[in-house]
Amino acid sequence: MDEFDLIRRFFVRNGVPGVPGVVAASGVHAGAILGPGDDCALLAATTTAAARFAVTTDLLVDGVHFFSDVDPRSLGHKALAVNLSDLAAMGARPVAYLLALALPRPDIEWLEAFASGMHALADRYEIELVGGDTTRGPLAIAITALGEVDPAAALRRDRARPGDDIWVSGCLGAAAFAVRERLRGHPLPAVHAALTRLEKPVPQVELGLELAKLSAQGLVHAAIDLSDGLAGDLSHILARSGAAMVSSIGAALWAEALPSHECLSGLVPEDRHDLMLFGGDDYELLLTAPTMARGVLERLGGLHRIGVLDARPEMRLQDGSGGERVLPNRAYQHFRSESDRL
Amino acid sequence: MDEFDLIRRFFVRNGVPGVPGVVAASGVHAGAILGPGDDCALLAATTTAAARFAVTTDLLVDGVHFFSDVDPRSLGHKALAVNLSDLAAMGARPVAYLLALALPRPDIEWLEAFASGMHALADRYEIELVGGDTTRGPLAIAITALGEVDPAAALRRDRARPGDDIWVSGCLGAAAFAVRERLRGHPLPAVHAALTRLEKPVPQVELGLELAKLSAQGLVHAAIDLSDGLAGDLSHILARSGAAMVSSIGAALWAEALPSHECLSGLVPEDRHDLMLFGGDDYELLLTAPTMARGVLERLGGLHRIGVLDARPEMRLQDGSGGERVLPNRAYQHFRSESDRL
Repeated sequence: MDEFDLIRRFFVRNGVPGVPGVVAASGVHAGAILGPGDDCALLAATTTAAARFAVTTDLLVDGVHFFSDVDPRSLGHKALAVNLSDLAAMGARPVAYLLALALPRPDIEWLEAFASGMHALADRYEIELVGGDTTRGPLAIAITALGEVDPAAALRRDRARPGDDIWVSGCLGAAAFAVRERLRGHPLPAVHAALTRLEKPVPQVELGLELAKLSAQGLVHAAIDLSDGLAGDLSHILARSGAAMVSSIGAALWAEALPSHECLSGLVPEDRHDLMLFGGDDYELLLTAPTMARGVLERLGGLHRIGVLDARPEMRLQDGSGGERVLPNRAYQHFRSESDRL
Repeated sequence: MDEFDLIRRFFVRNGVPGVPGVVAASGVHAGAILGPGDDCALLAATTTAAARFAVTTDLLVDGVHFFSDVDPRSLGHKALAVNLSDLAAMGARPVAYLLALALPRPDIEWLEAFASGMHALADRYEIELVGGDTTRGPLAIAITALGEVDPAAALRRDRARPGDDIWVSGCLGAAAFAVRERLRGHPLPAVHAALTRLEKPVPQVELGLELAKLSAQGLVHAAIDLSDGLAGDLSHILARSGAAMVSSIGAALWAEALPSHECLSGLVPEDRHDLMLFGGDDYELLLTAPTMARGVLERLGGLHRIGVLDARPEMRLQDGSGGERVLPNRAYQHFRSESDRL
């Protein structure tokens, strides 16, 4: 058994290396007809005739997306979580994923922890690793996730309209706070809850599926997951929706409505707002919806109404006393900003 | 426009950044309902009700899979070609692909050449880049390719049987010869044809589609693409097919039937055989088929019958005078061997 047989052992769970990795198609949702070990995996969508595949890929690189000393179990979790977050932001049900992994050497302890973090999250959504590629090289992790969604229900970025309410799930700013504290050399225990938010983000898959049902009824217009900060990610919705309408579209955000993580409570308001607006790695969902959806969105729980879309071509932050500042539509130049989606 | 807007410009061809990348679903084959610019791409299979998605990912790393001074246009071609080769080895029709790219800095000239090489190959198969991710980091390229295939026609690795003929397409050894000459410091013009085979491999997509039709009729049993050398790749078919049968399966290869590339003509036979058996990067298709398929496979053209499967648990190379040597089932430890598929 050579080094890479050993590596394969941690990732291929449908039998030992060399044994066909045929996975029975699940009766519940889409599944793999043929898993790892062949030239390709074969996937079938089985829920409904209208279902289609949503597919996304994210690349995590040492020193850009994570600190070099990150716990490998957390890293395995996060590498998959950021992809599931993209599926959630599309309203797609996760089906399967592939892993392309470059690592400097086959460190068994590291691999075991990395794989266990990834598998634990995969198990939560009953999805399997159906293929991949490993190679020696500077540590880099590219996961491709596939999900299933009815295109008529998909949570797209280009359907927001002036007059829509802006909603966000959960609370914001904790992951960016953890990065900032770490870069300032502050001890980790003081920011433990924030570090958990940074290293073990929870993809909003269930919420995405609920929102997709509402999207099919016209009760949600657009959505995106928050990976690069609220301002930057909202600007993607504005750019694509404005282009689709061939018209300008902007946003007013209410400073006092932004849901900040409790670890930000000791900060002055401007500092807190900056972390929430420009910090990355929150992996909450941002959505826009018509006003008639307020009741149903409030009943979902965990959503905060934080502003409104209008026809002014920019994003503004409004305080309670009538003050307003125009927001840049770029994420902060922190360690996540050196990457972008195609 | 920041650096990454500039990068995006080279890869997103369905409109300018910020404009919805909606791609009309093709009437001919599967296509993208929603292309780049959202959280996920949406894909539909449209050819037949039985069609399913085949999905594969390959990661190319600087210094492991290519020389650092490789022509970026060739690299763009090859990064996509190796994935299309996996689709070909499954008998799948290419549908779409995603790119995860880490690069040290946004070098516009490099990116333009890389993208043009990739797009030129994509155009040949009428497939689109439907999503991706770019980041700063040591040069690494992970492409995920999706294809469409009827599972009943798919060219799997685990259906080979003793008594099958072994066939291979094209000619072998040229890419490994180019690597060897380069590592020995020999001038490139002397191995130009070989270098083209290494840097601009042609994925056998059309052949894979023809073989899939035969597979559906039981006239092809198993197939794999040759990325790590004939011996190593044949051993994958033997391992998976043997496990599927719970029985031993081996192979006799005929030294004089192996189709060597003309650039190997000056070498002594043992040298030539080693490059063909253990050299990588040929990207030809290796298949096994029942004897009754001989006529139809010969009529396809370009296929060579190079041996036969039997029930002895190993691979042997037989020469014309009754001599036989047992082959190790591992690829050579050349620069490609530090990677493996899951």
